Order: sequence, then structure tokens, then C-alpha cells
Amino acid sequence: MEGSRINNKRAIVVGIPGVGKTTVITRAVEMLSMHGLNARLVVFGTVMFEEAMKMGVRHRDEMRRMSVEEQRRLQENAALKIASMSDDVIIIDTHLFISTKEGYYPGLPLHLLNLLKPTNLILVAAEPREILGRRMNDKTRQRDLVDEGEIAHELEIARIMLAACSILTGAPFAIVMNREGRVDEASQELASLLADGRRGVEQ
Amino acid sequence: MEGSRINNKRAIVVGIPGVGKTTVITRAVEMLSMHGLNARLVVFGTVMFEEAMKMGVRHRDEMRRMSVEEQRRLQENAALKIASMSDDVIIIDTHLFISTKEGYYPGLPLHLLNLLKPTNLILVAAEPREILGRRMNDKTRQRDLVDEGEIAHELEIARIMLAACSILTGAPFAIVMNREGRVDEASQELASLLADGRRGVEQ
Amino acid sequence: MEGSRINNKRAIVVGIPGVGKTTVITRAVEMLSMHGLNARLVVFGTVMFEEAMKMGVRHRDEMRRMSVEEQRRLQENAALKIASMSDDVIIIDTHLFISTKEGYYPGLPLHLLNLLKPTNLILVAAEPREILGRRMNDKTRQRDLVDEGEIAHELEIARIMLAACSILTGAPFAIVMNREGRVDEASQELASLLADGRRGVEQ
Repeated sequence: MEGSRINNKRAIVVGIPGVGKTTVITRAVEMLSMHGLNARLVVFGTVMFEEAMKMGVRHRDEMRRMSVEEQRRLQENAALKIASMSDDVIIIDTHLFISTKEGYYPGLPLHLLNLLKPTNLILVAAEPREILGRRMNDKTRQRDLVDEGEIAHELEIARIMLAACSILTGAPFAIVMNREGRVDEASQELASLLADGRRGVEQ
Repeated sequence: MEGSRINNKRAIVVGIPGVGKTTVITRAVEMLSMHGLNARLVVFGTVMFEEAMKMGVRHRDEMRRMSVEEQRRLQENAALKIASMSDDVIIIDTHLFISTKEGYYPGLPLHLLNLLKPTNLILVAAEPREILGRRMNDKTRQRDLVDEGEIAHELEIARIMLAACSILTGAPFAIVMNREGRVDEASQELASLLADGRRGVEQ
Repeated sequence: MEGSRINNKRAIVVGIPGVGKTTVITRAVEMLSMHGLNARLVVFGTVMFEEAMKMGVRHRDEMRRMSVEEQRRLQENAALKIASMSDDVIIIDTHLFISTKEGYYPGLPLHLLNLLKPTNLILVAAEPREILGRRMNDKTRQRDLVDEGEIAHELEIARIMLAACSILTGAPFAIVMNREGRVDEASQELASLLADGRRGVEQ
């Protein structure tokens, strides 16, 4: 049921905007590599676009205009591609939900989870106050400004959804806190979760 | 995996008591029909009773007294019946959970979701204060009176459960707010979600 | 899809530390037995260890050191063992999540739920204030002390996760309140949920 290699890890990492996920996972991959592990960072949307390019698509906008059915096939192809990678540790950067005009699309529906076969589910979180500060300083993205209470609520939903994904896949879920000025600690924690393969699940 | 027809939509619509769901969906079906779409409103419990009548059941009370296994078969038959309908847009009015003496039965368990194959999941919501007001004015139903905090909590659970159903089915979920005195806006929003079939799911 | 015997019940019972779950379920089994039902209490972790002993394991510590894959096989064997028991009522004492160094393992992942085929899902709950008091008085276990707000939050997550398991399995879920000094009421309520098999699920 799991990947065919001993210690082969496929970790799905999610986080709400402003938690600093990209920084945390980039450094975690560096740390794992320094420890002699073959670690790779995979952005789900990018793999999906690479699959689209094989079908003649040239721009991301073109991909967005494909039918829902075609895009689902792309998602599935991307999931199969990632599941077939043989690196020691694969960190998959993706979204729990994607906001569209039709509502929130699940980034990790059951049919994709069944293809991806994650071994670990990880949420990068941070203090709501710090997330709010980062969102306000980020001029490059148009984000709806919300208050700390709403951010705490977004984190809560993310936590619950990840726990639900854990029940669906049987993979453990963990929360990594990215505290202001201590990103290396968060990266170290993430790397530690993925460096070792022997843990108990005894009830 | 999806319905066999292009643009065929099967939207499951849920909502807690007092949000005004019935009014919103009835008008949304009218709006879709006026736009030339073949739209149909389907009440899940009614289809279930129609299936029961084929088996000789005459009253709803008789159906309630059937064994759990028999009722499950009725639910499955109803789901298959609805999944086979060929209208452009089918709005399925149902419950997330049904309160019984044995506890809360899931109105949309995974095995039914797999048969219904919804293309859209929609929660009709409203401000807790407005929901409380409607519940207090509704003399026709015996409802436990609760306060605004508890209603906010019920809405929250409904939202989380619908998000979980979205992960299970891969269908997007949306929340339609039914604001006091603006039911047409809510119906319009619901109709818009179901009028068009081309949207992106790119990550 | 259900157990092969009429009225055969397999109830999964969960609860956060300090709710008094063990007392409630032990007395409920006694009550069911006094009513002439063949009732059995099954601790999931114990059945898992019995399965491990068949494979030559002598101590729980040895089981904990087995690979994740081996432990999963043990979990599945334990689930199959329990699903094959023919008692009238089987109360399964288990955990929703198990805290490990790799994060939170799901105690009831979908693949186990599919083997266990529970007929009822039950959460034993209590007032956060009472849970806090019991945790503070329990000197035998090393528990992180938390405040009432955090306990209310733990209960909320447990409730949501059980509702999610209900959608996955189609089994109803119920919440049994264990109020201070009224454990017999809680046990009675739990026993009542499992004594009778005829209920409606009509929508």
C-alpha cells in the first residue's frame, strides 16, 4: 500500500497565505540534502503545468481555460508523476482548497490522495498576529485584509481538513510552527519529521 | 467519472434550519428555467419515499419503521434515480445529518455521495441573528430554541462537513449568504454557480 | 454491507483524556449483560497486541519498535478479528488520534473503518471544567495541563472528526455526556443506544 522503497517519504505540506511556507520548505529540503538524503521540492501546480505542456499547452492561462474534466485529468497525471518519483524525501507544496468562481475546489480530493499516497501530512502554521503582519507587508499580492480572529479561524479549518485527510489516507499529520525570526527552527522540525522512518502507531 | 452530459450539473444544497433554503432554491430553479435551462428541484427524502412506494409502502410512517438496512437500500435507490436524471441542472435538497434516537445519521454518507456524483456542493447560510429571528417566528415547527452563539456553531459544523464532502467527491463547495430581505440576490448567486460549466481548478 | 447478524452492533467509542470513558463503557457493558444481551468490551490496542503475540512479539515495547508497515498490518488484523466477533453488542474502545514523534496517527483511518464496519460511533464527552478537574487529580499519568478553553477545543475537534467518520462509514454518531457524579446515567444512555436496532434514517 505504501511506496515501494524503504524510507521513501512523500510529504504533503500545506499552509494558509502568510505563514511563510515556501521559506520553511525550501530550507528543510536544503537541510535534508546536507544530511545526505536525496530530497526534492515539488510544487503540485508546476507539475500539473508540465503535464499540460506535454499536451501542447503553452501558457498557464491556456490551462485555466481547459474544461474541468481535462484539468482533473491533468491533476491525476501530476499525482501519478509525483507518486512515481524515487527520491528519499519528496516535499509536495500544494493547497487544501483553491478559490474559484464556482466555489472552493479541493486541492487534495480523495481520488488524488489515493494516487499520491502521501506518507506524511504537514501544516505550516504561525501566530495569527504574525500572519496578519506578513500579509500587510506583502505588496506583491492582492489579498483580502482580514483580522487576527479570521486568520485563527482559517488556521483552524486547515487543521481540521488536514486531520480529515489523515483519516482518509492513514498518514500521520503534524503541525510545524513558523515563529517570527526562527524560520530555521521550523525548517529543522519539518526536516526531522521526514528524516526517520521508524515510529510506532500502537494504540 | 462525471455525468455523461456536458454541463449537466447535480448540486447538493444543504443548510441549517432557519436559513431560508427552500425559498432560495425554489427561486434559483425559476431563474435558471427563465434562462432556458432545464432545471429541476429534487427533495431527496421525497425521492426516497417514491422509491418506497414502489415497494408497497403507503405512508412516510411506514418507511420510518423499516429496518435500517431497508432504508439504506431506499437511500441508494433514490441516489441512483437522481444520478440518472438528464436535466441540465438538478438541485438536490437534502440534510447533512438527520437527528434520530440512535444519534445523527449522515444524510450524505460516502457510499451515497459515490452514487449521487455531485458536481457542486452548496451551503445556504445566513447571519446567526437573522436565523434566530426566523426560528422564533416559525410557529409551525417545534424547534429547540438556541442562542446566536450556538447557531454560529451549527453553521461552522455545516461548513466543515461540506468541506469534508468536497474532499471526498472532488466537487467544489460554495457558501451562499441569504441576507434578510435580499433573497433574490442569494437565488441569483446560486443560479450563477450552476449556469456555467467552464472554470479552472489550476493549483 | 453490514454485519451478517441481525442486531449485531459494533460501536466505536472514543473520548478525550479525563472524560471518564473507561468507567462509562465498563458499566454500560454490565447493564447490557444484565438485560440478557451478549455484550463485550474490546480495547483495540489490546487486540492489536494479541495479534502481535501470535507473530512472536512478547512485550508492547517490541510492538512499538516494529516498522510502520508491520504495525499497520497488525491494526488491520485486529480490525478483522473484531469484525468477526459474533456477540450481540461489541463496544470498541479506541483513539481518534495517537500522538507520536511523526505527528498524530489516525486511530481510525478509512482502511480500518472499512474493515471494522462500525454500526455506531459514540463520543463520551463531559463539561470542560470537570475534565480539567479529573486531569489535575490524576497523578498516575503525565499529562500536559491545559485550560478549559483548550479542552473545549479538543472536544470540538473530536466531535468534528467523529462526524467525518460518520460520513465515511454511514454509521450514526452520538454524544454521551458523562456528568460529575452521574456516571450511571451516561452508561444507561450508552447502553440504550446499543440495545435496540430499529431506527429510522428517513430524510
